[in-house]
Amino acid sequence: MKLKIAVLPGDGVGPEVTAQAVKVLKAIAQEFDHTFQFKYAPVGAVAIDETGEPLPKTTLDLCKATDAILFGAIGDPKYDNDPSAKVRPEQGLLKLRKELGLYANIRPVKAYDTLLDKSPLKRHIIKGTDICIYRELTGGIYFGEKKLSDDGNTASDLCEYTRAEIERITHLAFKSAQSRKRKVTLVDKANVLESSRLWRRVVTEVSQEYKDVKLDFLFVDNAAMQIILNPKQFDVILTENMFGDIISDEASVIGGSIGLLASASVGDYFAMFEPIHGSYPQAKDLGIANPIASILSAAMLLDHFGLFEEAELIREGVERSLKLNITTPDLNTKFNHISTSKVGDFIEDFINNPK
Amino acid sequence: MKLKIAVLPGDGVGPEVTAQAVKVLKAIAQEFDHTFQFKYAPVGAVAIDETGEPLPKTTLDLCKATDAILFGAIGDPKYDNDPSAKVRPEQGLLKLRKELGLYANIRPVKAYDTLLDKSPLKRHIIKGTDICIYRELTGGIYFGEKKLSDDGNTASDLCEYTRAEIERITHLAFKSAQSRKRKVTLVDKANVLESSRLWRRVVTEVSQEYKDVKLDFLFVDNAAMQIILNPKQFDVILTENMFGDIISDEASVIGGSIGLLASASVGDYFAMFEPIHGSYPQAKDLGIANPIASILSAAMLLDHFGLFEEAELIREGVERSLKLNITTPDLNTKFNHISTSKVGDFIEDFINNPK
Ligand SMILES: [Mg+2]
Ligand SMILES: [Mg+2]
Repeated sequence: MKLKIAVLPGDGVGPEVTAQAVKVLKAIAQEFDHTFQFKYAPVGAVAIDETGEPLPKTTLDLCKATDAILFGAIGDPKYDNDPSAKVRPEQGLLKLRKELGLYANIRPVKAYDTLLDKSPLKRHIIKGTDICIYRELTGGIYFGEKKLSDDGNTASDLCEYTRAEIERITHLAFKSAQSRKRKVTLVDKANVLESSRLWRRVVTEVSQEYKDVKLDFLFVDNAAMQIILNPKQFDVILTENMFGDIISDEASVIGGSIGLLASASVGDYFAMFEPIHGSYPQAKDLGIANPIASILSAAMLLDHFGLFEEAELIREGVERSLKLNITTPDLNTKFNHISTSKVGDFIEDFINNPK
Repeated sequence: MKLKIAVLPGDGVGPEVTAQAVKVLKAIAQEFDHTFQFKYAPVGAVAIDETGEPLPKTTLDLCKATDAILFGAIGDPKYDNDPSAKVRPEQGLLKLRKELGLYANIRPVKAYDTLLDKSPLKRHIIKGTDICIYRELTGGIYFGEKKLSDDGNTASDLCEYTRAEIERITHLAFKSAQSRKRKVTLVDKANVLESSRLWRRVVTEVSQEYKDVKLDFLFVDNAAMQIILNPKQFDVILTENMFGDIISDEASVIGGSIGLLASASVGDYFAMFEPIHGSYPQAKDLGIANPIASILSAAMLLDHFGLFEEAELIREGVERSLKLNITTPDLNTKFNHISTSKVGDFIEDFINNPK
């Protein structure tokens, strides 16, 4: 298969971890006789530094001309604590999602047996957890109209949703549930918010087309409790943009390491794959960033194009690295100084010579 | 001291647990020679059933004519899954907070040593946790303008904040931090939301008046992780209404039982005290609801009026009941069938005859 892949390494540890994912994809291409072409472009704070824009037009054009996007991370502390900054790295990611119509963010959350003791949660609470979160990604309050009064004393953000926005991601979530445990939990705040009541109405209607899938509902504040109290109760979680941001980050701690969690952002025409960890600027260039989330997002990319065997081989390489303690310091209890690129090398070797 | 106390038992288990708090307050009045006058009024689903309104005018008038309000819980499942319902029990609570100007919701979260093993989190993660959450309660998206298009296909909610709304709760949070560990963490989403950027600006300005308190910032999605990963890092958490709803419910699981957590909702003129657990309709009239949160909210009421010794005696009674396993089934590993009112009786006895 020929694939054109846009690589957007971004800020902080983004370039280091993305380099390992590319390394692994190149090994896959070689072993399976695929042709993967990689084209690089800046995004985020590095793009602001270069061009003044967090998402330069050339980057967006490249993304539109490729089959898939491998994304690193964006964000730089110099913008976070400056409320007066007009241009922000995060705008690059938000705009990219919007421009490419990436309306569904998909995040698998799994408790790896080998890492149960890493979790802040008790073993019996998390063992067997296998959740897939579908977060709406291009609507809601993050994209709604923002206002600041002239005197600077009143500010507002609008959370708006349309039936069409809700329907399309609802279909994806229910289809996914059909090949899983056949349960969708809608997380909303329908007892207070009008937009949540629209979600509940539309999702209930769409669910009629999936009679084999059970639908239930949870208010977002209760969901924030239930994810800690009993994560095993969930199969597919479906929710709007901001609730999904909060709930999926909360759920990310279950597995014991955010450095393992990959994600996909898909729309009707484009798809982007990225680790869920942020730019982690404190770790930049230290060789300590865990590349596994980025490598697993490369596996999700292969899945997206039906290359299941290839994706599986990457996942086997990852599991082998975890078992043999060939991991970065965040996970490693045995060896010192196994660097970001050493982990990538190990998985590359595994693909070249699977044992 | 003479206190007029409005008692609003509400729905579900509200009446049962509130009855225990009243029992305990009566014991305090007797022991310390105070005069507490209790007046009852309906709120929530029971008020809708009686009058058609979740907050009847007579209830609101009573609250305004009293010194403090002891509140039970509201909510009934018959309204939750009916998106077409025009009147909802929760509106009663929202309206009460708004009408009485109860702009700050205060929630202490503590890990009791005797209950560490009850928590879904590991012992070493939570031991020593002592957080106080200040949640803005009368602004933001829960109260913003709600719209539903005529065709029913577009819905929106507005999140709006003013400088004045932010300033007043910020002062309360910083004053509280001064008698604690001198740290305030503002939870927001300032990298995306205009309203969050206003929060960050105003809180930063107000913090200049409290040089002895350290201020730091956390994005809400990161906060949802940090509360599980390392709850001990927090002292006072300050946040807007919806973030506070989610974060404080999430934090409520730390201590291992939501049945122990009390809260205060205060404004410049009125104050209301309530357990944080909801109406828990499945448990109604079974005698299994834990009354301790309601009893501890009575203690917060006494603190509010400077009756520190009295409040402390209640807390001692509670700790004694926990130690001796005189608790409802949710906590009890030793005795069966200790009912809601038995727990109240024990703490009442303790107050009459402290040992
Ligand atoms: Mg996030
Ligand atoms: Mg809540």
